[in-house]
Amino acid sequence: MRTVDLIVKKRRGERLSREELAYLVRGITDRSIPDYQLASLLMAICWRGMTDEETADFTLEMAASGSMNDLEHFAGGRLVVDKHSTGGVGDKATLVVAPLVAACGVPFAKLTGRGLGHTGGTVDKLESITGFRASLNNDEFLRLLQDHDLAISGQSDNLAPADGRLYALRDATGTVDSIPLIASSIMSKKLAGGAQAIVLDIKVGSGAFMKQRDEAERLGRLMVSIGEQAGRRVHAVLSNMEQPLGNAVGNALELAEAIATLRGEGPADLWELSRREAIELLLVGGRAQSEDEAAALVEDAITGGAALQKLADVVAAQEGDPDQVLHPETLPAAAVIRPLTSPRGGYIRRIDALTVGLASVRLGAGRATKADSIQHEVGFVLRHKVGDRVEAGAELLDIHAASHADADRAAHEVLRAYGFSDEPVAPLPVLLE
Amino acid sequence: MRTVDLIVKKRRGERLSREELAYLVRGITDRSIPDYQLASLLMAICWRGMTDEETADFTLEMAASGSMNDLEHFAGGRLVVDKHSTGGVGDKATLVVAPLVAACGVPFAKLTGRGLGHTGGTVDKLESITGFRASLNNDEFLRLLQDHDLAISGQSDNLAPADGRLYALRDATGTVDSIPLIASSIMSKKLAGGAQAIVLDIKVGSGAFMKQRDEAERLGRLMVSIGEQAGRRVHAVLSNMEQPLGNAVGNALELAEAIATLRGEGPADLWELSRREAIELLLVGGRAQSEDEAAALVEDAITGGAALQKLADVVAAQEGDPDQVLHPETLPAAAVIRPLTSPRGGYIRRIDALTVGLASVRLGAGRATKADSIQHEVGFVLRHKVGDRVEAGAELLDIHAASHADADRAAHEVLRAYGFSDEPVAPLPVLLE
Repeated sequence: MRTVDLIVKKRRGERLSREELAYLVRGITDRSIPDYQLASLLMAICWRGMTDEETADFTLEMAASGSMNDLEHFAGGRLVVDKHSTGGVGDKATLVVAPLVAACGVPFAKLTGRGLGHTGGTVDKLESITGFRASLNNDEFLRLLQDHDLAISGQSDNLAPADGRLYALRDATGTVDSIPLIASSIMSKKLAGGAQAIVLDIKVGSGAFMKQRDEAERLGRLMVSIGEQAGRRVHAVLSNMEQPLGNAVGNALELAEAIATLRGEGPADLWELSRREAIELLLVGGRAQSEDEAAALVEDAITGGAALQKLADVVAAQEGDPDQVLHPETLPAAAVIRPLTSPRGGYIRRIDALTVGLASVRLGAGRATKADSIQHEVGFVLRHKVGDRVEAGAELLDIHAASHADADRAAHEVLRAYGFSDEPVAPLPVLLE
Repeated sequence: MRTVDLIVKKRRGERLSREELAYLVRGITDRSIPDYQLASLLMAICWRGMTDEETADFTLEMAASGSMNDLEHFAGGRLVVDKHSTGGVGDKATLVVAPLVAACGVPFAKLTGRGLGHTGGTVDKLESITGFRASLNNDEFLRLLQDHDLAISGQSDNLAPADGRLYALRDATGTVDSIPLIASSIMSKKLAGGAQAIVLDIKVGSGAFMKQRDEAERLGRLMVSIGEQAGRRVHAVLSNMEQPLGNAVGNALELAEAIATLRGEGPADLWELSRREAIELLLVGGRAQSEDEAAALVEDAITGGAALQKLADVVAAQEGDPDQVLHPETLPAAAVIRPLTSPRGGYIRRIDALTVGLASVRLGAGRATKADSIQHEVGFVLRHKVGDRVEAGAELLDIHAASHADADRAAHEVLRAYGFSDEPVAPLPVLLE
């Protein structure tokens, strides 16, 4: 088999066989295929696409390109669950859902990347806590799962190394935006991560990779089908990412909002999505037989404080300060906190998630490139969401910045996210199906 | 400007501006753009194409990426001409046309690549002559042009180096087959080579890059338009490459056939094409004002022996043995020469050029990769062409091979090129428009 022949085959729009994909994944992993051949193959895949079966074959080969975690032994025979969001602005749902389902007795194991661009990363948010250690080795990860039913760690290079190489190349070669490439990248890491039941949160809208609902639905169906072909139980949720999720954008601010939500005091949209995901995880994880039963377990874990305590316990086990979880007012705070007021009265018609996300990256909350460092305490806290009526001069949001100059620039940038209307505007639903 | 943004722009099907193309060509030439970004850009160009203006902009930038020859001074103010064939099997027309037009007083300067795959290279054919030195430096090349009105040399790396880098990459990345990439590659080298008037021979059919006539016509029109935008006079000829051109395939065999043609004793199709190209060159070169005048000059140069003598003189000037030109029976001969007979009687319906070309490469006449060496004396000489009636057992062709084992394999391979019919079959025209 010759790589160039497979490139030409894909260029012509033909399907690559399982054997041909296995050959490619071996060559990606052992680096016998050079970057330039992978780059033209990736662009040919963007051009011609892949069939669903072909994408599944590719994903299974990539998942098997490194070590595959076997978690069952560390969860007393129970199904281990995981969730994955395709990424958005203000998406801290994992910080709510993970301790919540673990507190309900469903083991939750998540290996996760760091944030890049305008989408944040769970690990970056947890690192707002003093002393918290996010990069665990495999033994530490499994011990946490065994002791607490909950483990969240930065991702190891041993999982799906073929995907790791492609992922780095896609960014530089203009080949990020492809449904089969996105699906195979996410699912190869999830399959190698070892969870037997997975809930996927597919984001749609300005702040998401998928701008169109039909594309997001195709991506969701494809990932569910890949997971099932690998013998995993997979549910998908479609959610809105036109405006930020919840009110907080920025690492410590989002963590504080997740903690409030675990106390039953979070914003309605974040709670609605987190509750839905938790119920789905209890169902796919086999902990509840009906939605009502799952909803009752979830309710109890919040009102009884078990979910919040679970987060505090795991933070302590990862060398973080659990008092910051129980008293989030002790999390690091920005030097400058000041309100941004509305230039006009009316109904808020839009709060563009991408614009808010990029403004928060410029404040220091995110990374423009992988090498950038993060300021955990900066960001925004929205006071209103789409559909709210505001008066001119009313407070739209708080800016949390390292300096007044940063806050000035951020005010200018984030205001462009807003649109107003004189007519009433309906609130945006968070769950789309 | 960022390369990845230009890749994404092309991926979306947008036109790249002259400034953007200039940025890319600079980055290709100084190697600041890595291979993997070029590879995905090339595939995006295969996908989305380029407008004719965009292709012309790209070509002019690539032509200017290295040194640009200025030949006028070395030809006493006359226009210097060049011809280019898009490549085929048995295409030795340059060996006829170049000395022919030079003998008519039109300076001819050709910088040419070596053969790759099933298409031969002019320089490889000339190197069948003992002592012939094909790689000239720039001064030697210009002196030959000045002294003999004729210079043919292997191409220097200084001409259109951006194209050189892309050309090498296209082969490995499955991006050879693209009209804008083919046109810009050929024309950037031609423009940098310095000829002011150019005749292009666009081959169509099995043995050519362009399999379809409409594609070949588009390629021809595009290259003429690029040349004219650069202030050159360009004519294009469309010719048939379903069956090999002439009878000989293989380096020394093709040279001998070209010499026979310069004596007025060549195969009809080769002479028809060579005569047409020579007339076009005399017209674009300004040597003749009408087709009749050009035809008369061409006729005289053959019958008077001036064309053959011109080839002998230039071979001598490049340290080759001129006696081998005047007495081609002294060219190197293969160890095994034997006939292949027809398995059945009937009319020859096809002699697939690609199949014949690939069989000759396997005999050693061509290179599968750039590093391969060539056996000059091996190849085929056809006894019949499409449309001829043959009896079962009649001689179809002679195989010239290094060994009986090679000849056995070649017989098996080349026979697959043939198709027969019981009904009469029309001969294939060589000129298509």
